Amino acid sequence: MTPGPASDDDAALVARVRAGDRRALARALSRIEDGEPARVRGLVSGLHPHSGHAHVVGVTGAPGVGKSSLTAALATWWRGEGRTVAVLAVDPTSPFTGGALLGDRVRLERHAMDRGVYVRSMASRGHLGGLSAAAPHGLVALDAAGFDVVVVETVGVGQAEVEVAAVADATVVALAPGLGDAVQAAKAGVLEVADVLVVNKADRPGAERALAEVRDSQELAVGAAARDGQALPEGVDDWIAPVLATVATDVGPASGVPDLGRTLAQHRDWLARSGLSARRARARAELWLRALAEAGLRARLDALGQGSLLHDLATRVADRRLDPFAAADRLLAALEESD
Amino acid sequence: MTPGPASDDDAALVARVRAGDRRALARALSRIEDGEPARVRGLVSGLHPHSGHAHVVGVTGAPGVGKSSLTAALATWWRGEGRTVAVLAVDPTSPFTGGALLGDRVRLERHAMDRGVYVRSMASRGHLGGLSAAAPHGLVALDAAGFDVVVVETVGVGQAEVEVAAVADATVVALAPGLGDAVQAAKAGVLEVADVLVVNKADRPGAERALAEVRDSQELAVGAAARDGQALPEGVDDWIAPVLATVATDVGPASGVPDLGRTLAQHRDWLARSGLSARRARARAELWLRALAEAGLRARLDALGQGSLLHDLATRVADRRLDPFAAADRLLAALEESD
Repeated sequence: MTPGPASDDDAALVARVRAGDRRALARALSRIEDGEPARVRGLVSGLHPHSGHAHVVGVTGAPGVGKSSLTAALATWWRGEGRTVAVLAVDPTSPFTGGALLGDRVRLERHAMDRGVYVRSMASRGHLGGLSAAAPHGLVALDAAGFDVVVVETVGVGQAEVEVAAVADATVVALAPGLGDAVQAAKAGVLEVADVLVVNKADRPGAERALAEVRDSQELAVGAAARDGQALPEGVDDWIAPVLATVATDVGPASGVPDLGRTLAQHRDWLARSGLSARRARARAELWLRALAEAGLRARLDALGQGSLLHDLATRVADRRLDPFAAADRLLAALEESD
Repeated sequence: MTPGPASDDDAALVARVRAGDRRALARALSRIEDGEPARVRGLVSGLHPHSGHAHVVGVTGAPGVGKSSLTAALATWWRGEGRTVAVLAVDPTSPFTGGALLGDRVRLERHAMDRGVYVRSMASRGHLGGLSAAAPHGLVALDAAGFDVVVVETVGVGQAEVEVAAVADATVVALAPGLGDAVQAAKAGVLEVADVLVVNKADRPGAERALAEVRDSQELAVGAAARDGQALPEGVDDWIAPVLATVATDVGPASGVPDLGRTLAQHRDWLARSGLSARRARARAELWLRALAEAGLRARLDALGQGSLLHDLATRVADRRLDPFAAADRLLAALEESD
């Protein structure tokens, strides 16, 4: 990591992002996505003091449940409430090609002419489980740009739900009828991170059964505060994730989307009343600091890997002349001497 | 990490594993899967000098391509050749429940009465991308137990193919006709790690088209040595991953399984002739050492996380009173003082 304050260039970019300049925002996000450590540091350090105001909503679920439609419908609802919305769509990516899958983000195009909606894809390059290493920094930029709501949308593949929950104020886990075993198998883990559960495509056959199944599983669920091991102030009930049905190709009252929007608003109020909001912000910062520290350590290991020490140790381990754990100890000792 | 040599208990277990004691092997693998660092270290240190003889074959591919059937059919073929076979099946797991999915491993049951075949599942708990952090240690145990071939079978979900290729002598990437966009999208990344490409379920509609598509993509593929940036000895041609068709519910000559078995034998010979075998073993050891060193660093971060420093820094970052990068620097400095 490079020390030092933001450069003049960083300060100018931060000022333009805060003033609502869309081209500056796009440039800031590209710089964050490129990931050059010193440039990311200068920019994100400059943006960070101006963040912390957006309502960060995670939307996740298996492929095919209609996450993009749901996000688009929610964006329409929020706009109707007078709120501005940014969407950070994190794409699963081949570790080799680096190219993001296109997906069905096209559905968000209905908002293309609305300056109150901003949509950006970010590849989840390298970082496993769906959420890009750059995504938390992207959220800082969108937050500092002044959007009322920032949605982070990602495909739920095992770990992704957990990672989304770690950066969001509220996590919406979307399911759909008839998606079979994978969804069922994922449920147990998913239930534990969901603040709101949505059965989307609720006009499809099997919707009633899917809703019943999710609600049955819900009976075993504990509240958000109980999960965090947190005592609640007197008069505040715990939050048990509601199960809602939506048809996100529609945004009318019968679509379930307004219900979802209102439920998210209630959840935000509850977070503030329960005191969990500040607690979650701190937990999020802890995860972020750990991730930054781990990235710093990996960079040092990379630097060691360029030299001959790792190569020599690995050769002796491969030849069974050296114990791998003893070799790792030597690597760690060299790491400390390398400062 | 705990220093010191293997205990008497470890030494006894290692001796029993090497002598072909199946109950000892099961106990060793359970201890490895449990992951208690000091116990893993003692055991794997004891097993490691006796490993390095098995032919390690990775079998990966999307859900539904018939990886388990393919592995079972290959095991039958290898047994016919007089070779013993161990299978390490790495299961995707919910990060919360810790319970492995059952999958269709039942197909391997035809070998249940054959002492020359050993099958073991291991959860991919926590470690993203499919391959368990414990899997490389499990391979050491199966290798030291004297199996001629050790198959590591894992669901290909993005990063898994890459991880399998990092521990295997040969990586078989399995596809199937009609599995749609996901397989197509994955192809580009998958091609680069495959030593052998298999279109399984080749009796299904669309098999010819799938084969043609894979072979078309193959025209862009580079050889294994070219990929590794390695010059080959004179008279040794580069290895371009062959594309084979199999019907792995059968093991007869027309099933394609004997072809696959022979191709893997040819690949092993080629690895030895080309000099890439030793190079890959060293690269594998480098990855292993890095992983061990990173685990050691994470353990130290965990220990710091128990104290008040991380909590205090995170609170100030969450309140925007401290720059996250400066906080991460302090965390790293404390890490070095904590030795």
